Amino acid sequence: MEVTLGRFLFERLSQLKVNTIFGLPGDFNLSLLDKVYEVDGMRWAGNANELNAAYAADGYSRIKGLSCLVTTFGVGELSALNGVGGAFAEYVGMLHVVGVPSILSQSKQLLLHHTLGNGDFTVFHRMSNNILQTTAFISDINTAPSEIDRCIREAWVYQRPVYIGLPANLVDLKVPAHLLDQPLDLSLRPNEPEAQEEVIQNVLKLVERAQNPIILVDACALRHNCREEVKELVNITNYPVFTTPMGKSGVNEDHPRFGGVYVGTLSHPEVKESVESSDLILSIGALLSDFNTGSFSYSYKTKNVVEFHSDYTKIKQANFPGVQMKECLQMLISKIAPLVINYKPVSVPYVPEYNTACPPETPLTQEWLWTRVSHWFREGDIIVTETGTSAFGIIQSRFPNNTIGISQVLWGSIGFTVGATVGAAMAAQELDPTKRVILFVGDGSLQLTVQEISTMCKWQTNNTWMFVLNNDGYTIERLIHGMNATYNDIQPWKNLKILDLFNAKESESTRVSTTGELESLFEDPMFAVLNKLRMIEVLLPRMDAPANLVAQAKLSEQVNNT
Amino acid sequence: MEVTLGRFLFERLSQLKVNTIFGLPGDFNLSLLDKVYEVDGMRWAGNANELNAAYAADGYSRIKGLSCLVTTFGVGELSALNGVGGAFAEYVGMLHVVGVPSILSQSKQLLLHHTLGNGDFTVFHRMSNNILQTTAFISDINTAPSEIDRCIREAWVYQRPVYIGLPANLVDLKVPAHLLDQPLDLSLRPNEPEAQEEVIQNVLKLVERAQNPIILVDACALRHNCREEVKELVNITNYPVFTTPMGKSGVNEDHPRFGGVYVGTLSHPEVKESVESSDLILSIGALLSDFNTGSFSYSYKTKNVVEFHSDYTKIKQANFPGVQMKECLQMLISKIAPLVINYKPVSVPYVPEYNTACPPETPLTQEWLWTRVSHWFREGDIIVTETGTSAFGIIQSRFPNNTIGISQVLWGSIGFTVGATVGAAMAAQELDPTKRVILFVGDGSLQLTVQEISTMCKWQTNNTWMFVLNNDGYTIERLIHGMNATYNDIQPWKNLKILDLFNAKESESTRVSTTGELESLFEDPMFAVLNKLRMIEVLLPRMDAPANLVAQAKLSEQVNNT
Repeated sequence: MEVTLGRFLFERLSQLKVNTIFGLPGDFNLSLLDKVYEVDGMRWAGNANELNAAYAADGYSRIKGLSCLVTTFGVGELSALNGVGGAFAEYVGMLHVVGVPSILSQSKQLLLHHTLGNGDFTVFHRMSNNILQTTAFISDINTAPSEIDRCIREAWVYQRPVYIGLPANLVDLKVPAHLLDQPLDLSLRPNEPEAQEEVIQNVLKLVERAQNPIILVDACALRHNCREEVKELVNITNYPVFTTPMGKSGVNEDHPRFGGVYVGTLSHPEVKESVESSDLILSIGALLSDFNTGSFSYSYKTKNVVEFHSDYTKIKQANFPGVQMKECLQMLISKIAPLVINYKPVSVPYVPEYNTACPPETPLTQEWLWTRVSHWFREGDIIVTETGTSAFGIIQSRFPNNTIGISQVLWGSIGFTVGATVGAAMAAQELDPTKRVILFVGDGSLQLTVQEISTMCKWQTNNTWMFVLNNDGYTIERLIHGMNATYNDIQPWKNLKILDLFNAKESESTRVSTTGELESLFEDPMFAVLNKLRMIEVLLPRMDAPANLVAQAKLSEQVNNT
Repeated sequence: MEVTLGRFLFERLSQLKVNTIFGLPGDFNLSLLDKVYEVDGMRWAGNANELNAAYAADGYSRIKGLSCLVTTFGVGELSALNGVGGAFAEYVGMLHVVGVPSILSQSKQLLLHHTLGNGDFTVFHRMSNNILQTTAFISDINTAPSEIDRCIREAWVYQRPVYIGLPANLVDLKVPAHLLDQPLDLSLRPNEPEAQEEVIQNVLKLVERAQNPIILVDACALRHNCREEVKELVNITNYPVFTTPMGKSGVNEDHPRFGGVYVGTLSHPEVKESVESSDLILSIGALLSDFNTGSFSYSYKTKNVVEFHSDYTKIKQANFPGVQMKECLQMLISKIAPLVINYKPVSVPYVPEYNTACPPETPLTQEWLWTRVSHWFREGDIIVTETGTSAFGIIQSRFPNNTIGISQVLWGSIGFTVGATVGAAMAAQELDPTKRVILFVGDGSLQLTVQEISTMCKWQTNNTWMFVLNNDGYTIERLIHGMNATYNDIQPWKNLKILDLFNAKESESTRVSTTGELESLFEDPMFAVLNKLRMIEVLLPRMDAPANLVAQAKLSEQVNNT
């Protein structure tokens, strides 16, 4: 009645429906990888490199709430750091398991390969430690299971990356199997009742007096699994609800009370007016980064702002540490109904769509693309948008109900989405065979992580559509600085040959350059069937960009120069 | 008579013949990149991603003694860390310049993109600091030039990476131009004369008594530019000279006193016997890592070992801190002649070549390849070998005079060589239009960094031959553990289509699977002309590997399991 420590780890993950493990083999993790195959329904993704694997783990976690990345000591773990840093910045739960040299090698300070050659075996762990929720550098088989449980718990609850260093000689040692019978405790600790009650009473007072309240949904509402609470709050109050760019997909955009995306001065004028003239803002999961706020250009006229966060609540200027949003929102929902009886719903902004009626030979533009594609999206889609024109463009697309948007608005590491799409597509395969994953990535960003498309080919993620927006280089950078500088150019690739190079089985690669060409794809029902891996290269003018990106780029250059 | 701080940096690098800058644009370094174009003869490589760029900088530095990598804050710099760590472990001089947010943004703790969202602007610098010789996080324009000079000096002298954080708003500020007239002081500080004299006298005493002395050349002899001293010492003493795997190319292998490559128990028996029966070993630049020593299997019979290092000398058990090898070797050379007059040169081992005479339809093997390719190498070649079968196989190839070998025997990050080849090829373009760069990389390693071949296409490095050893997966890992495990499989690619995908101008892609096919390539004089970018896919049996790798893999698994 014993299991190996390695198997214990993967059984725990399996209990949480984490069924794909991302990463690469390396000689300090090989014995650990043997254990992946011992667990029912578990698969080893086998990514193309460690950074891509971390991105994939990020994408997977945004769908399933947790993911696991396995790398090898030194070389592997350092390659993944940018991906792990992104998970930290953007609140994504991820277990980074590093296969490290045996305890004996460590204590003898052997000059092993993958070390700095100075006998320091904790240096990489110390480096990672700056971008983690918690870590365990395992050295004792007796405490190892509880250390693993602690790390998994924290990754899940705080939605941040954690690190487990697992020595090569420990993964085959045995631990009691009955430990697996005790389910992991993933509950949030309850809020302190008095503090929570004070918050609720204060909020209710503000609600009672409000004439023109709104709800503003941001990133952490998604990451801390509060979509359901948001939905109930909107339904019960009838308040207009807006999202930020990072909060997009946190609320049903088909809902009659959905008002649009608020990005400070970069918002549509009607949206800006609606939000900023409000006399009470219930802000849920705010993450006020530059690209999420139109370079910090929020300008509410009201001082009545309530911020619900994952670890505190703020009412006007008062902080309530430890009052966590999920429980607090549930409590609010249970008490708010009588106070909103007399609320007279104001109308929500109507943002007109751009004219999509144009001759079919019209060259494609970003403006047209982001409007038109809304009508091709369908319920349940996962929509992945790369930093650059895509992440800005998608703001003006309307998402059907129950979609999930994946983007890296705060961390903004270009190339992220190709890896994230692999993770999202594998998660979607596990969840629902009809779920589509739709990627929008620029030709510049694609180059950083292109080999991860090979992992899609390996796993035949025929639920994936990749729109490669080819505008001949780094357009977002050109808008910020160096419009004609050659450092913003890239080597042009024959993108339509990528799927073939990587040996895709069923696949389709198409290029479109006019509205008519893209229109016929979208109108073709066969194009929407999940039967092949698809790449659509979308040719766009070099300096064409969504209007909000053009404005943001100007603001960014100002910040850099002062 | 002023120059911008950004230009000052690149002018300094230009003075040291660093004429290519590696990296990617990002909005915190764009203004800095403008300055690259202001300096005569300077070019911006524009790599495909930051890890590859770091590898390229590593390869460039191994040819030119120093290199410069430019990344952007957070996302860019973290992506490069594995490459920077490799430069630290393997003693490679590299300047890592990171474009960071403006001083004002930092002091206001703005929630900028590319940050962790917590207002901590020094976290990435702190992480890097663990794998650097020194750093400067510039905040004052007045001291900036001297800080830059200090960092460049340390990177050069210690052959290690250094870090300069350069705020976006400072690069356009002016500094006095006359600072550039004072050449950088790159001299080693002189050895303390008394300590050095004691070392010399002790060594001379050992030399006088030695019957059977040898010289053993290792990695740091190459990195600290002591090839000339090694050559003189061999010529003046007539001692047999051996190299380690990492020391390969540190000595002319056509020299009559060259005895072969010593790798402990993995050495050819004659080499092992010659080294281990010696009664005096003059070891130059030793770096005793596992893969460099056959898993620490050195077994000298003599206790008379003198180790010359870049920062100390060790005689038997006595350390002489601060007695640096370059000056010390020069002093020794000037005094050793009278003491070796009576030395009777022993013969050096004769390592027979494997039989290359076989029917042309014979399937290729590693053993045949590494023997045969020796005769195709020519003077001046740069030979790059990836961790795996290539780095082990190359040990049995004989290098012509004046070749440079590039490999990452200690750090061993797979994928390194594709990036390193870009750097080496660009350095070769600058140094000598007839110089060839020859890469050997496995099909598994290639997948991690394949997009860097696009940078070769961009710069038309028609001095480059890429031999892709296709043995259907991670063979080195299969030998260590998991011979039939699918985690050591990779998605098969159509490698011959890579150059076309990346839009190579003049290029050639060929596949060979028999000795006859490879023989005809090597015999074709046109194949050796520097007029196109070439990829040769070499099909090899899945479990075929150089004998020394098979032995090393067994030793490695033992170390991991205990």
